[in-house]
Amino acid sequence: MNNFPSKLVEEAVNELSKLPGIGRKTAIRLALHILRKEPSHAQNLGNAIIDMRNNIKFCTSCHNVSDTDVCHICANPYRDKSLICVIEDVRDMLAIENTGQYTGVYHILGGVISPMDGIGPENLNINSLVNKIANNTVKEIILALRTTIEGDTTNIYLYKKIKNNDVKVSVIARGVAIGDELEFTDEITLGRSIVNRTPYETLIID
Amino acid sequence: MNNFPSKLVEEAVNELSKLPGIGRKTAIRLALHILRKEPSHAQNLGNAIIDMRNNIKFCTSCHNVSDTDVCHICANPYRDKSLICVIEDVRDMLAIENTGQYTGVYHILGGVISPMDGIGPENLNINSLVNKIANNTVKEIILALRTTIEGDTTNIYLYKKIKNNDVKVSVIARGVAIGDELEFTDEITLGRSIVNRTPYETLIID
Repeated sequence: MNNFPSKLVEEAVNELSKLPGIGRKTAIRLALHILRKEPSHAQNLGNAIIDMRNNIKFCTSCHNVSDTDVCHICANPYRDKSLICVIEDVRDMLAIENTGQYTGVYHILGGVISPMDGIGPENLNINSLVNKIANNTVKEIILALRTTIEGDTTNIYLYKKIKNNDVKVSVIARGVAIGDELEFTDEITLGRSIVNRTPYETLIID
Repeated sequence: MNNFPSKLVEEAVNELSKLPGIGRKTAIRLALHILRKEPSHAQNLGNAIIDMRNNIKFCTSCHNVSDTDVCHICANPYRDKSLICVIEDVRDMLAIENTGQYTGVYHILGGVISPMDGIGPENLNINSLVNKIANNTVKEIILALRTTIEGDTTNIYLYKKIKNNDVKVSVIARGVAIGDELEFTDEITLGRSIVNRTPYETLIID
């Protein structure tokens, strides 16, 4: 769409459409919405974006986004520092935290190894993980990456880097999702869930 | 999702998720994308939003968004000021401009009459349209509102307000979309396209 009625709107639409998943039509809709609202709304939105980017810190221990040098999970004395869950990004952390089932700390890799996307081990936070483990205070590493070829490749790479240390390496359980019916579960998942069957007693939660 | 790792991120996510069609998960994805990009990117985005909202003007003639008091379409001496196309908002103008088929000017209503949404005639730019017509320089009004009950209601309301003036009132053609197959066209559209059939000669464009 050319012939924009206003350079100001055009500029805002151009910037908004740089965001992922936001095309030109959506960007126009967002810009018109912002124009209909109070100026304070635009001010808050714009400042929140700029403030976040300028003042954000990354936790020196787990690479989580944080307002302080060490994030609130790593700084929490009640979290088990000997248990580290390796995840791709902050969203995975939010999802796991929401379950209320995890009391250890995290290590954010920043992605998975994906030669197709030009992401090699050197682009991920792997060295800092290996160094943490070399300190001998870590008892278990839980690999919680996506269950794709890229995720599995990264799991193997990490396992080889870690295995010489005295640390248990586990991977999150894969199987039939709770609430799913067997006939609609894909064959690979169903096959694995039979091969990797677990003792019934593990299902009984006190 | 609670327990956000950073107040800065939380604030940006809260503001982003106030935008239409952007839920909390999408807002988190956008915030993480902004964090991965250069700070200048966030700066440009934030400033473009604030600048647009603070400095935008609305055309005193057609209510279009504009950087000047009169928009570039109303200010263009080659546009036919005696032909006014009545539309809901700026997006409709962009869509019609893109066709390259229209040489008149626009009048932006700001919506359609919709009692369900609490929008009455007093909330729309109707008086300024009636005043423009009363000046006797307008020859034709094209009603180009959405083809729904609300749009039709608004068309009737406008027609009653305008009809006593010496002005032609027309409505954009409704019928089978070009490229559509008849069997997939809804009955109401197909029925109307037969009742309101047009002479074959009108299809021949020189």
